[in-house]
Amino acid sequence: MEQIGIGLAGLGTVGAGVFKHLEGNRLLITERLGFELNIRRIAVRTLDLVRSVYPPPGLLTSQWQEVIDDPSTNIAVELMGGVDVPYEFVMRALEARKVVVTGNKALLAQRGAEIFEKALQKDCPIFFEAAVAGGIPIIKSIREAFIGNHIESIHAILNGTSNYILTRMTEAGLDFPDALKEAQALGYAEADPTLDINGWDAAHKAIILASLAYGFWLKTDQIHVEGIERVTASDIRFAEGLGYRIKLVATIQATEKGSIDVRVGPTLVPKQHVLASVNGVFNALMVRGDIVGDALFYGRGAGQDATTSSVISDLAQAAIWIKSAGKVFGFTSHGLYGTCLPINEVSSGFYLRLVVVDEPGVLAQIASVLGSHQIGISSVIQPEGHVGDSIPIVLMIHNAKFGIMQAAVSRIQHLACVRAPSVLFWVL
Amino acid sequence: MEQIGIGLAGLGTVGAGVFKHLEGNRLLITERLGFELNIRRIAVRTLDLVRSVYPPPGLLTSQWQEVIDDPSTNIAVELMGGVDVPYEFVMRALEARKVVVTGNKALLAQRGAEIFEKALQKDCPIFFEAAVAGGIPIIKSIREAFIGNHIESIHAILNGTSNYILTRMTEAGLDFPDALKEAQALGYAEADPTLDINGWDAAHKAIILASLAYGFWLKTDQIHVEGIERVTASDIRFAEGLGYRIKLVATIQATEKGSIDVRVGPTLVPKQHVLASVNGVFNALMVRGDIVGDALFYGRGAGQDATTSSVISDLAQAAIWIKSAGKVFGFTSHGLYGTCLPINEVSSGFYLRLVVVDEPGVLAQIASVLGSHQIGISSVIQPEGHVGDSIPIVLMIHNAKFGIMQAAVSRIQHLACVRAPSVLFWVL
Repeated sequence: MEQIGIGLAGLGTVGAGVFKHLEGNRLLITERLGFELNIRRIAVRTLDLVRSVYPPPGLLTSQWQEVIDDPSTNIAVELMGGVDVPYEFVMRALEARKVVVTGNKALLAQRGAEIFEKALQKDCPIFFEAAVAGGIPIIKSIREAFIGNHIESIHAILNGTSNYILTRMTEAGLDFPDALKEAQALGYAEADPTLDINGWDAAHKAIILASLAYGFWLKTDQIHVEGIERVTASDIRFAEGLGYRIKLVATIQATEKGSIDVRVGPTLVPKQHVLASVNGVFNALMVRGDIVGDALFYGRGAGQDATTSSVISDLAQAAIWIKSAGKVFGFTSHGLYGTCLPINEVSSGFYLRLVVVDEPGVLAQIASVLGSHQIGISSVIQPEGHVGDSIPIVLMIHNAKFGIMQAAVSRIQHLACVRAPSVLFWVL
Repeated sequence: MEQIGIGLAGLGTVGAGVFKHLEGNRLLITERLGFELNIRRIAVRTLDLVRSVYPPPGLLTSQWQEVIDDPSTNIAVELMGGVDVPYEFVMRALEARKVVVTGNKALLAQRGAEIFEKALQKDCPIFFEAAVAGGIPIIKSIREAFIGNHIESIHAILNGTSNYILTRMTEAGLDFPDALKEAQALGYAEADPTLDINGWDAAHKAIILASLAYGFWLKTDQIHVEGIERVTASDIRFAEGLGYRIKLVATIQATEKGSIDVRVGPTLVPKQHVLASVNGVFNALMVRGDIVGDALFYGRGAGQDATTSSVISDLAQAAIWIKSAGKVFGFTSHGLYGTCLPINEVSSGFYLRLVVVDEPGVLAQIASVLGSHQIGISSVIQPEGHVGDSIPIVLMIHNAKFGIMQAAVSRIQHLACVRAPSVLFWVL
């Protein structure tokens, strides 16, 4: 089995997630890729720290340079946080033509121009799906899926912390300081939430999205950024009365003047707009391309697991780049499932509509058939409206196997009190 | 400039879209890719048909074989429709190691196993983003972005026609036959809408998604498929009363038994579930991965432009596969935008909240300042609630430049009747 060596700098939340899930899903990833991803070296700030994961001690080093210089490293993964050391790390890795994977939005927003110049000069790629919107594949979608489109606009909710705070202000009528305290107590806001609430976390992501959509790097002082500190519970109530929700929206759009409009700030979103329904810590991006029209992406924007999923995607893409372009992947069996569950074995909730004679005792007959099949009824409604001497009756079934359900329905169908073919739908 | 030759079979709706948009966005695509995509040959059923696009007559042929056999064809694009001839086309192309792009869901659902066996055997890839959910990059996301994840489930609305019909039945209380007639009149349903309403269009897409998520091909008779013909306006009303919407949902999920559960049928979706809000001709997919958690994709699932966008994405990926793995793309300027619009030049709607003295004539003073800056007020609300002798007042501004807005606000701030710093938010 061929191997690709990974050097990891940083074993914090995301670094530990990458270590854990590369191990946990090793079989799956190896079968899909056709070769193995192996972590060969891990740089940490402090060697003897208690962690959530336990890499072999021989892998650890306190010198990040060793991660790059190790000849077995093919991909250098930067998950350290901060800007200055990550910048040195990434530039040294590209110089050595080690493919780079990073999730560092501040780094790219501030030094992206230099980093990508170096990447082009060395013909060595850099992947950064985790830098924007956690587990949502927005980088890949803009770079690859929408490659034929002029991007007309992106409107996005990119910061889960501030979206959580605004959601709680909206739903519970909390004022900003109380909502912030709640977010901190729940671990959705850090002890120092400055970058989340002043809009700059979202702004870093907006700069990266703008670079992908419009092909050049904005300087951080070129964009107008405002946070959510000035939003009050009254503003939210007033907006509600006008038919709007207040969200921290990053806007990135082309203008008729041939320049782009990039800004982050509290924004009134019409209630019927999909972004208005994005609540809690979730992120969402509405992308408009000149060919594709509108497309919405929605998911977890942060957190160990979602972000790790994107880092692993980048590792796979980097590895494919290194190994060859010719790998046709995604169609080899991964060996875990090879059969389709017979439909009769599928368990689900059900909606059962019957048309029955309007007489006492009818429900008892139906319930008795269901009961004899061990099928439990979670609720019954008898909507108004006769059709002759018949009435509809709707039964909600909490959970049953389709085969048993069908057998019961078939028996019910033969009851004298049942007047029309019954209807059975799935309940999600 | 290096070139990649494209042979196109089929010049119907999607084929014409590909021709049109490859021409229209040629500059952009060439700059992003670093080489040119050129259509070299187009096979059509009838040569002298009046069409919406006008390729040079020398490109056209009535023999699809010529598209593959032409030595300048690097990528063979199948957009013919049907199954038997497309199958011959795709197998012949793979045999000749021409990279294949297709949007043919019926073909893949019925003959996918043989086609992908051939692709692996010839080490020649096949791309098919357009086959599922039009412009939504779901194939790429499952194959690449979620490569590290076991896919736990996919719940999806995959047929725009039936979703339009169900939406109209829900919103306007129409019964199925009337909603279908309306959809046909609007061009959302074809003259023969059988595959849309009987669930099989969605089922073909579900088979493709299952193959990506679980690595094997289902036979069409292995999955349980039901359409929307039996859904009545009463069912929708009953479901509404229970807190649900009825949608045609494709379910693809792993079960604890080591097999997969794949089915398509009318399904009650809780109103608060995001899929319940997917209305009209739109498609949406909710994917749950064991690492990434839930991710939602939403967009146009059909139509010339959305589908074309996916075909072009596949063409780019196919071309990169052919040219080299080493292309670092997505960061070269595309030359259309190189500047950021100064924030003062940005036009938007605004929400302006002021705290003012509760006296007659205050609104007139404010309106006068705004008027002198040519700023139009679209509505004013004076929410109840005094703070001492002050009251809040909210003005909605239809459209103004930020710089002018700020100048006006700054003058308003100096009015004697204004008591606290004003707040200005964007309106989407």
